[in-house]
Amino acid sequence: MAPPAVSFLSDYGHGDEFVGVCHAVMIDLVPGLQVIDITHEIPVFDVRAGALALVRAVQYLPDGVVLAVVDPGVGTDRRCIAVEVEGGFLVGPDNGVLAPAVAMLGGARRVVALEREEHRLPAPGPTFAGRDIMAPAAAHLAAGGALDELGPDVDPASLTPALVPLAADGEDGTITGEILWIDRYGNCQLNVGPDQLSAAGGEPGAAVVVRIGDDERRARWVRTYADARPGELAVVVDSYGMCALALDRRSAAAELRVRVGHTVALVTREAGSA
Amino acid sequence: MAPPAVSFLSDYGHGDEFVGVCHAVMIDLVPGLQVIDITHEIPVFDVRAGALALVRAVQYLPDGVVLAVVDPGVGTDRRCIAVEVEGGFLVGPDNGVLAPAVAMLGGARRVVALEREEHRLPAPGPTFAGRDIMAPAAAHLAAGGALDELGPDVDPASLTPALVPLAADGEDGTITGEILWIDRYGNCQLNVGPDQLSAAGGEPGAAVVVRIGDDERRARWVRTYADARPGELAVVVDSYGMCALALDRRSAAAELRVRVGHTVALVTREAGSA
Amino acid sequence: MAPPAVSFLSDYGHGDEFVGVCHAVMIDLVPGLQVIDITHEIPVFDVRAGALALVRAVQYLPDGVVLAVVDPGVGTDRRCIAVEVEGGFLVGPDNGVLAPAVAMLGGARRVVALEREEHRLPAPGPTFAGRDIMAPAAAHLAAGGALDELGPDVDPASLTPALVPLAADGEDGTITGEILWIDRYGNCQLNVGPDQLSAAGGEPGAAVVVRIGDDERRARWVRTYADARPGELAVVVDSYGMCALALDRRSAAAELRVRVGHTVALVTREAGSA
Repeated sequence: MAPPAVSFLSDYGHGDEFVGVCHAVMIDLVPGLQVIDITHEIPVFDVRAGALALVRAVQYLPDGVVLAVVDPGVGTDRRCIAVEVEGGFLVGPDNGVLAPAVAMLGGARRVVALEREEHRLPAPGPTFAGRDIMAPAAAHLAAGGALDELGPDVDPASLTPALVPLAADGEDGTITGEILWIDRYGNCQLNVGPDQLSAAGGEPGAAVVVRIGDDERRARWVRTYADARPGELAVVVDSYGMCALALDRRSAAAELRVRVGHTVALVTREAGSA
Repeated sequence: MAPPAVSFLSDYGHGDEFVGVCHAVMIDLVPGLQVIDITHEIPVFDVRAGALALVRAVQYLPDGVVLAVVDPGVGTDRRCIAVEVEGGFLVGPDNGVLAPAVAMLGGARRVVALEREEHRLPAPGPTFAGRDIMAPAAAHLAAGGALDELGPDVDPASLTPALVPLAADGEDGTITGEILWIDRYGNCQLNVGPDQLSAAGGEPGAAVVVRIGDDERRARWVRTYADARPGELAVVVDSYGMCALALDRRSAAAELRVRVGHTVALVTREAGSA
Repeated sequence: MAPPAVSFLSDYGHGDEFVGVCHAVMIDLVPGLQVIDITHEIPVFDVRAGALALVRAVQYLPDGVVLAVVDPGVGTDRRCIAVEVEGGFLVGPDNGVLAPAVAMLGGARRVVALEREEHRLPAPGPTFAGRDIMAPAAAHLAAGGALDELGPDVDPASLTPALVPLAADGEDGTITGEILWIDRYGNCQLNVGPDQLSAAGGEPGAAVVVRIGDDERRARWVRTYADARPGELAVVVDSYGMCALALDRRSAAAELRVRVGHTVALVTREAGSA
């Protein structure tokens, strides 16, 4: 039987050969290994963006191994880890990039630090741990190698957590959240789910006031982008089940001049009374 | 025997995890499935650009399944379809993105609408049909599943056609066409083939006047880029057999300040008499 | 047994379907063939950048076939070649793009020119030799086909060499080199190795003066990026064993306003005496 796939996410980009070399290292160790590129365009060093992209993707990945490398502390004493979860393993630096995915998969069953030299590539320096430490570990696990051959156990409770902000419910049906992610189409995913919006008085089809800084716009909760009228700001439950600001066939991010991390307030009662 | 490959084209870009998640969905359904990425950098929502890239590529694709997702109407009542052709199947939205490729492959033998819930992923909303509807259908077909399990038959004559503009032959050896595609190197493919140019009086090696708006330049029909003199505008029969405007080792598009869709007139007689 | 992988590098970019079509051509010829994308974002026509990326990657590639296409002379009488080396074959244009990798792999054992029509795709013109000539040759070799079926022997001594500049040792512990490569993170790899820097009086942990044009900055030779103080310019032995200019979590290239090819002098004695 074929070894399970390795699903690979990083901030390496495509301009250099970093992604290709990691593929090569894994395939050299496990000929025929299937590697799925989740994305490699995570903004440089943006651990939170990497963690969020991984947790969005993880429920769709086949059982096997996840390799996630966003690693601003490369070469320091931050640990590289492999985490056993239901259905497989996650490999990456211990800086929070794996944490939301580990939680979504039911938590860590066991964790080791990738310290065994015999499972590392010889290297002139410590600056490319994806290639030299983490890709070989991912290949080892994909080939059915034992977790404890990679290094000593680590207490799962000692792992670096991810800090994902919660949206706050205020008075009068106001939810104050932030933009977690802006996709290629300019849709702005919020840290607000439809249940929270409903609990605050929102209803599918009804108006929602969107406040960003001093700007305030009337939007409408619709089912899909094309249900918005031309130019009408929409709140859509996106493909991951979160509320997103969107425009039909245009970029809401460009129109609203917003970026990831900006604060967004959703106001349902005012909107409803208008 | 291995299942046939799925060849995948979209406007998803590489910045988000959309492409990777569709790979994951297909490989989760069909372990070991080979997925060929044609390109995912089709400009956002540009159905015509997607259709043209697909029809350029399609004659080179192995038998199997094509998945093509450029889908500005996602979530509306536009249909998602699977089209049986000689050598395999094409899966995509019914908005014209598949149409030129279907025609080049000899036409649709049978078409179904992807309506069976059991071949869709459960999803919180209708906004990622590539992941939830079309990728599962492509995987089903690649694994040898029956077309009619995916949904009810659709009359092939009811499919949305592609609108690809024809170049017009005018008086005095003038052909009025437009720019279909500008590639990474700045070569500008026209909707003019070498037979049409020859019929209008053009000859390999001879001069051609190129008119774009008020600009008029003398060009020469040459065999390859490097046959043009430094700075000389060239007409080259490109690798897909169409006439293209080019410069040697420079971008003709940048030099001419043109974009896809601009009108270009080729004049052979004036050029020949000069 | 599965055929060995083809490792593929080019300047084709991802915006067009060029990379995908080359994958398709190879997989159509050799179903199930594994293709590793090293990178396709080599700057357009930049043979030296392609040669350097390939030589950085080559030691990590699995045995098999390398396909490297950066080909400004496409369609001219420059040769397309296949080079037999220890562990496999390299296929590309004879313009220097393969040369450093061939040298690193111990030199060419045998070389042929890709002239046999029966191993080329029929094509409307000579402008896409990657698709029509080189990808089919790479697939042929990956499938175990004989080298001499591809065309006549070529004298390895007649191949176009690569011109990689050497850094010069001057008086007083000054090394004058240049920037070979700037990666996504803004690290600037020099054509200076740590042995050369040590021989000139440099020491790990000690200061190095970096002169670029009229600009002169004090740097420090450190082990990894995070060992540099905030804003401190660092000299790091990078993951390929060369000296690189770096900043911790910031782009040294942006801070220094440098590009590939710029001259950089490293001065150890002045720095040490300061």
